[in-house]
Amino acid sequence: MGEKLLVKNIGLLQTPVGSECHCGAQQGENQKLKNAAVLCEDGKITAVTADGALPAGSEGAAVYDAGGRLVTPGLVDAHTHLVFGGWRQGEIPLKLRGATYLDILRAGGGILDTVRHTRAASEDELFEKSRAFLDEMLTLGVTTCEIKSGYGLDLETELKQLRVIRRLNDEHPVDIAATYLGAHAIPDEYKGRADEYVDFVCQTVIPRVAEEKLASFCDVFCEDSVFDVAQSRRVLEAGKKHGLRPKIHADEIEEIGGAGLSGEVGAVSAEHLIATGERGMEAMRRGGVIACLLPQTSFYLGKTFAPARRMIELGIPVALASDFNPGSCPSFNLQLSINLGLLRYQMLPEEILTAVTVNAACACGRGNLCGTLEAGKQADLVVWDAPDWEMVCYRFGSNQTKAVVKNGRVTER
Amino acid sequence: MGEKLLVKNIGLLQTPVGSECHCGAQQGENQKLKNAAVLCEDGKITAVTADGALPAGSEGAAVYDAGGRLVTPGLVDAHTHLVFGGWRQGEIPLKLRGATYLDILRAGGGILDTVRHTRAASEDELFEKSRAFLDEMLTLGVTTCEIKSGYGLDLETELKQLRVIRRLNDEHPVDIAATYLGAHAIPDEYKGRADEYVDFVCQTVIPRVAEEKLASFCDVFCEDSVFDVAQSRRVLEAGKKHGLRPKIHADEIEEIGGAGLSGEVGAVSAEHLIATGERGMEAMRRGGVIACLLPQTSFYLGKTFAPARRMIELGIPVALASDFNPGSCPSFNLQLSINLGLLRYQMLPEEILTAVTVNAACACGRGNLCGTLEAGKQADLVVWDAPDWEMVCYRFGSNQTKAVVKNGRVTER
Repeated sequence: MGEKLLVKNIGLLQTPVGSECHCGAQQGENQKLKNAAVLCEDGKITAVTADGALPAGSEGAAVYDAGGRLVTPGLVDAHTHLVFGGWRQGEIPLKLRGATYLDILRAGGGILDTVRHTRAASEDELFEKSRAFLDEMLTLGVTTCEIKSGYGLDLETELKQLRVIRRLNDEHPVDIAATYLGAHAIPDEYKGRADEYVDFVCQTVIPRVAEEKLASFCDVFCEDSVFDVAQSRRVLEAGKKHGLRPKIHADEIEEIGGAGLSGEVGAVSAEHLIATGERGMEAMRRGGVIACLLPQTSFYLGKTFAPARRMIELGIPVALASDFNPGSCPSFNLQLSINLGLLRYQMLPEEILTAVTVNAACACGRGNLCGTLEAGKQADLVVWDAPDWEMVCYRFGSNQTKAVVKNGRVTER
Repeated sequence: MGEKLLVKNIGLLQTPVGSECHCGAQQGENQKLKNAAVLCEDGKITAVTADGALPAGSEGAAVYDAGGRLVTPGLVDAHTHLVFGGWRQGEIPLKLRGATYLDILRAGGGILDTVRHTRAASEDELFEKSRAFLDEMLTLGVTTCEIKSGYGLDLETELKQLRVIRRLNDEHPVDIAATYLGAHAIPDEYKGRADEYVDFVCQTVIPRVAEEKLASFCDVFCEDSVFDVAQSRRVLEAGKKHGLRPKIHADEIEEIGGAGLSGEVGAVSAEHLIATGERGMEAMRRGGVIACLLPQTSFYLGKTFAPARRMIELGIPVALASDFNPGSCPSFNLQLSINLGLLRYQMLPEEILTAVTVNAACACGRGNLCGTLEAGKQADLVVWDAPDWEMVCYRFGSNQTKAVVKNGRVTER
């Protein structure tokens, strides 16, 4: 017999059900149980009961009394760039004086500034900084997240970032899906030679990443002035050849065909999608691609918001993530993405819960492991200091968790 | 000799200076000291030093080592409605189905729902709920705040709210400025009889509030379909006659003359000001009225933002506050107002610091007591887990305080 935890006196347990991503037709389907309890054993859920019944086998379990509160699955953040050197608050005065993204990039700032700091940082420095982020994300309810590389761009630094991610996954309770995003920007040393940089990514880095089993996914920033559709396709096909499942940063600024490509290459997810039109969405729908939307980035940059409602209407599964990064979204608070899902995407609360749990878990390749509260899944759950999920969507600016359970272990705030 | 605290090893101490509100010309003037220290005694600051020097008289003081971090004055939230019954997350589905503010009000929801719950709650219930908010606000860096009544509307409940506010001020470390806002809405029992309600406010409630010394300020919601300029003037003049200094909710939705009135009656502050035009701003400038801006409300409602830059240009002192309330801004996180000051008002970081410290303190009638770090002021300060104030403005979604000192006592997170 292993370590047992009984979470009892759950006023409302709300969860999606199943191990596959929920498309529009199911996106709003949540199971709601009153007066529920969850039994966990050896880090897994073994039973969920309702209406005051306690699971068989609860005897001898440690007890967490939820005090009548709301319990949901642990949150999953399916898009972050949380391993990076430096910060970029120094660009504020430039931006207030009207400098554009390209002005700042030309002056050696922007993403290339983060690349310089990430190259200069030691593996231990990056690890300690990232671990602190994960500690706080866990208190905010996140029990699984994705992390992308892409601030090294050279072989050595990309591998360093990915090794930090592996070490975080090994040493930190939060589970991590690793994504190789070498094609995040064109580094200084390849300026004007994007195709040669793509060759380097495909022929030199991807084989090493695969050989060392440092990532599950391969991602590319498909955007005007960054990587075009042909280059993006080369990167993702090279990744697939080496067993890395494709993801794609598509249509963040302009619609150049990234969403269409995601359907063609069978991407797990397409991400951002601010400018995506009907053709791109149709390709995603046909390809079963998850739309991973990043509302905090739209908020931070003062941009428009992705057409979430239209995607749900079309039957595209929608996930919401943070996009935590030091340039366009210096926040890892997934609760703000929940608020923005309501305020800016006009998503229903039930659709939002699906978007930050099971759909996000599927975008991380972990729909079979987490994202719902069902027997057999990981014992990852959030006890909210709220009576219902509507409250979590409606209040903002406060961390609304009361306790977070990760692999059957309780962290109280 | 009283209780002594030395805050040392301050990498950067940044503060406005003086005890009066800073108009545009000074709004961006901050003193910046490197390698600083602050000596506190009996809850007051007795010395501020820089360049590694320690204040004379530091011997025997308890020491807080800021570890090279940023220190600023404690934040002041100059506009909240934080004593209320109930919440309003139940309106979410109605709003998503397209119901307007007026639709909800007609169905008995909106502010009248909060009035019902506030009337039904006991003084102790309201006190406990509000105290928990203040506990969290303190960890977020707020050491002084304003609280308005206005969810009772009848004599008994308005007095109950104001007594709760007095008790919070007595028992909680956060200092509180109390504002009577009886003219917040027209209660059901006066439906269609706004003038009679104004009579009641002026003749019955204001004298009682003044007699029991329950408030320092009197406020009114001057807005189309609520209280017009003539009614608002009556309320504020009645308040003045009883020693309550005027404040005014002006031009939140439409410009009907509230900003102009604020200048004429000598209001301490005009608040919201989303729709304020040149004439209103000119009246405020001439009258020395503080503009108390509430960017989280604009954000939450998806509205436009007040013309902060134009106000600063004109020499109007700008304060930023939260507007915490259960309808249009269910957040008391003043750090989000700081972020929005940068992102949506395009205020410089130094202007933002002035706006959440000394200008807000003056809007609370406490410029002589707090809002800057100078000998003689209250020992209210924030140690930020950041090297500079730009970082606090730029990162969002995380509580960036490391420790908060209130009246010379340290609260560590």
